[in-house]
Amino acid sequence: QNEAVLLVKCPDKPGIVAVLSEFLHTFDANIIESSQYSTNPENGTFFIRLAYYCDQLADKAEQMEKNFAGIARAFDMHYEFHYRAQTKRAAIFVSKEPHCLLELLWEYQNGDLNMDIGVVISNYEDSRDMVEALGIPFYYIPANKDIREQVEAQQIALMEEFEIDVLILARYMQILTPNFVKHFENRIINIHHSFLPAFIGADPYARAFARGVKLIGATSHYVTNDLDEGPIIEQDVERVDHRSDVKELRKIGSKIERRVLAKAVKWHVENRILVEGNKTIVFH
Amino acid sequence: QNEAVLLVKCPDKPGIVAVLSEFLHTFDANIIESSQYSTNPENGTFFIRLAYYCDQLADKAEQMEKNFAGIARAFDMHYEFHYRAQTKRAAIFVSKEPHCLLELLWEYQNGDLNMDIGVVISNYEDSRDMVEALGIPFYYIPANKDIREQVEAQQIALMEEFEIDVLILARYMQILTPNFVKHFENRIINIHHSFLPAFIGADPYARAFARGVKLIGATSHYVTNDLDEGPIIEQDVERVDHRSDVKELRKIGSKIERRVLAKAVKWHVENRILVEGNKTIVFH
Amino acid sequence: QNEAVLLVKCPDKPGIVAVLSEFLHTFDANIIESSQYSTNPENGTFFIRLAYYCDQLADKAEQMEKNFAGIARAFDMHYEFHYRAQTKRAAIFVSKEPHCLLELLWEYQNGDLNMDIGVVISNYEDSRDMVEALGIPFYYIPANKDIREQVEAQQIALMEEFEIDVLILARYMQILTPNFVKHFENRIINIHHSFLPAFIGADPYARAFARGVKLIGATSHYVTNDLDEGPIIEQDVERVDHRSDVKELRKIGSKIERRVLAKAVKWHVENRILVEGNKTIVFH
Amino acid sequence: QNEAVLLVKCPDKPGIVAVLSEFLHTFDANIIESSQYSTNPENGTFFIRLAYYCDQLADKAEQMEKNFAGIARAFDMHYEFHYRAQTKRAAIFVSKEPHCLLELLWEYQNGDLNMDIGVVISNYEDSRDMVEALGIPFYYIPANKDIREQVEAQQIALMEEFEIDVLILARYMQILTPNFVKHFENRIINIHHSFLPAFIGADPYARAFARGVKLIGATSHYVTNDLDEGPIIEQDVERVDHRSDVKELRKIGSKIERRVLAKAVKWHVENRILVEGNKTIVFH
Repeated sequence: QNEAVLLVKCPDKPGIVAVLSEFLHTFDANIIESSQYSTNPENGTFFIRLAYYCDQLADKAEQMEKNFAGIARAFDMHYEFHYRAQTKRAAIFVSKEPHCLLELLWEYQNGDLNMDIGVVISNYEDSRDMVEALGIPFYYIPANKDIREQVEAQQIALMEEFEIDVLILARYMQILTPNFVKHFENRIINIHHSFLPAFIGADPYARAFARGVKLIGATSHYVTNDLDEGPIIEQDVERVDHRSDVKELRKIGSKIERRVLAKAVKWHVENRILVEGNKTIVFH
Repeated sequence: QNEAVLLVKCPDKPGIVAVLSEFLHTFDANIIESSQYSTNPENGTFFIRLAYYCDQLADKAEQMEKNFAGIARAFDMHYEFHYRAQTKRAAIFVSKEPHCLLELLWEYQNGDLNMDIGVVISNYEDSRDMVEALGIPFYYIPANKDIREQVEAQQIALMEEFEIDVLILARYMQILTPNFVKHFENRIINIHHSFLPAFIGADPYARAFARGVKLIGATSHYVTNDLDEGPIIEQDVERVDHRSDVKELRKIGSKIERRVLAKAVKWHVENRILVEGNKTIVFH
Repeated sequence: QNEAVLLVKCPDKPGIVAVLSEFLHTFDANIIESSQYSTNPENGTFFIRLAYYCDQLADKAEQMEKNFAGIARAFDMHYEFHYRAQTKRAAIFVSKEPHCLLELLWEYQNGDLNMDIGVVISNYEDSRDMVEALGIPFYYIPANKDIREQVEAQQIALMEEFEIDVLILARYMQILTPNFVKHFENRIINIHHSFLPAFIGADPYARAFARGVKLIGATSHYVTNDLDEGPIIEQDVERVDHRSDVKELRKIGSKIERRVLAKAVKWHVENRILVEGNKTIVFH
Repeated sequence: QNEAVLLVKCPDKPGIVAVLSEFLHTFDANIIESSQYSTNPENGTFFIRLAYYCDQLADKAEQMEKNFAGIARAFDMHYEFHYRAQTKRAAIFVSKEPHCLLELLWEYQNGDLNMDIGVVISNYEDSRDMVEALGIPFYYIPANKDIREQVEAQQIALMEEFEIDVLILARYMQILTPNFVKHFENRIINIHHSFLPAFIGADPYARAFARGVKLIGATSHYVTNDLDEGPIIEQDVERVDHRSDVKELRKIGSKIERRVLAKAVKWHVENRILVEGNKTIVFH
């Protein structure tokens, strides 16, 4: 519980690592993981993730953040401190198909996801039992495009009530409005059932079948206002052949979706992801 | 040399396999490999590939084909006999980048491709040495869109002179005219440097970089008149991450292209591929 | 429900396919899937799997089997008829770790496994709830090497009571006696948590860590009396690196185990596997 | 050419990164890549790879190394400076099968390997032409176990003459003596044609066939005096099935060997590998 992560993004120049590591050392913090990336050593953008351990971190955190503000100004840094003691709280949105929700519940039960699940919201009743069996609140909010605004108002109220940090669309088949997306910038994770940018939009498995592809895939990405165009976090594929009909593609695809979404969520809650424009830097 | 392959496509109904296997048995042919597929047992289309061994096949082939014509009529079959003794002759078209050509030459030298390479044609001189070193004729035919017709006339003349059965575009960066494509229907194999249908058209690696994908791919397909839309034979991918710039993507991609094209060519010359509409049935 | 599978193994010689397909045609059965393999066209062993559809199969099956007996004698065939209407009944054995059991229950609920689960037997109580929630009988039978014989007697009695066709060891950490194995020859499917033949025996993840391998794997195989030496049905691997400690290897490995065992079970209940000596022929 | 890599291994404690990055910053060196790993933040071993850019590095290097000696003493560091301007020189040893050698020559020509190939040594004449065509010296040194010592004396003399830094066994089928291995500790890279620790020793493809595995692999490792037991650098696998005979396994395997060895060599010459006991830490 004395662990934290510091994420930094700033213009690249010599000496950043020295300043950051000196800063941590001053507080007797030991760097346990460090990853960095620069788009270009000359005038590029520099990204770093520092995971550190620090005795009595709770007592020191405030002073550390205060001291760090000066460094950040000097180097024009965008930065975030994330404390392991403050477990992230997730909301999961799901429609009819439960496989992605189930995978997340499973990983959550196993202790593989460093997060709490605050609430599950669905426009179908189907998943209620499996969610409530784990003591997680389940809300049924019917949705369609005519009542979108009032639905989203209800959802936002629940996000606030449950103090949600990250919102996971685990095969939630409703479009979100720009207003909703703005509330949760870079904090809504979607799973799209194709290897983006192939088969953007509806019914990707049917279209994959029609095109005769030899691999199908799934893509997890942050949601932006451009449909299926947000920063990609993770993708994976499986081999298929002429014998696979649409139903079989869906079955194979559901296994890809499960593991791709679970990885993206895991990396998000471990603060391994930095967003830069329409891309992600993921520090594994 | 007493081996052959019979490819059949016809409306599905009971008894087809019985008739085909009885036919082969009549000639004392032993089925050594058999694969079949039906789009639907009820009113679907049936596809079969039968590889067989037959003593003194050369003497029997004519009579077999004659007898088979009657069966084919009765079942409304499209069919092809391919004899191992008649090695397929390939032409390879290449532009500046040699990696796919090199892979094919390598596999050819190893005896992994059951084909002869009749001729290599390029709009650059770069590959001449490595091709001629193997005793394969190399023709330099400069090409651009203003002289497309006369270039293709030269190319078609060479195809005829060298009795070419299959034409391999090993990163040949010129568009082919419908007239040219028609000459070689389902016999022109292309490698596209993306995971189709993502990044159709020019510069797929630059666009993959811009999109921030986490896997890049390559696709081998038969060439039709719709750019990058022909029946897909094989696809594969490799994992990349934020650190890979366009140059690195190209490097990683070139390895995928090499193996994807080599597989597609191998399956084609082993007569493992049937084309149905815009798809392939590949019997591995 | 009018579908069946015929599995045949016999000395290879010309005409087998003709006889088999003629046999099926006589009964108006339509072959919907056919796969074959020969160890050697000259004096080798021939294997074939024929999946067929036949109107009023229930009425015809007895006569078909009777007629087939003659063919089998003539060709010295080992053969099996499997009818889709007779769903296979599985028993699942599990110890403490539930992940493989959970995956099978999940696939079973989804309708992805063409089998009934007759009973789950465990030497721990942990899985009782999740099994009984699905209406499947759960038996807790404590086990250790001192009471092995009486434990197995109880287990065999349950196998008989529940008319079990296939026995799945979903991380069941007890050794089976030769007597028990003999009862269920080629019908006990185990999952071993390594890429066999690497790390035979106990604690493969700890040994994989000690050796510093860069990939870990799992292997599903039929159980014989030689520990971890039975015919391999399926294997798969995942990439790991120096950062993965034994706990992390176990976590990654558990995902491989889940999917490898699920595939092996699926192929077994779809009658896609033929055993030859210490190997399997799996017709995908 | 102003780039360098600093590799450090030492007991873990707080402040190491601060000291190292401050050291580099003092010389106006900009860290362009940094990776670290600790076996355990408490009393573990700490590993770091720092790639840096430094104007006029050639002029500063001597002073940097001098200053660093003090830091190293204080932290009990094992360390290495590697300068990009000092390209590593490799010797490649090969026997009859040329595929691994060919892959390395190919990557070398493409500029994908940051090394010079000083000499190729073989106990067969087969590869002479392809090597000499690239202007690389080729030495034919017949070898067998009776003349091992005199063969190795010749080889060591050549290593010295050509100032070799790294020795690549690209399917060199002779055992090396402890004396020879000692000369090149952690600098001899071998490719073994199996997924170690499965199939240690001779004829792994034949044994993989006999065992009926469903995946075959290859392993690249540093050579120690225990046969096939040295620190593993990289491994990979490909799927096979019952239809693959030993010859086919060899063909599939040769493609795995090519890419696994090429990766291991690339990482070695980029100074991405640290050896710890019988394991490698590879910083990708």
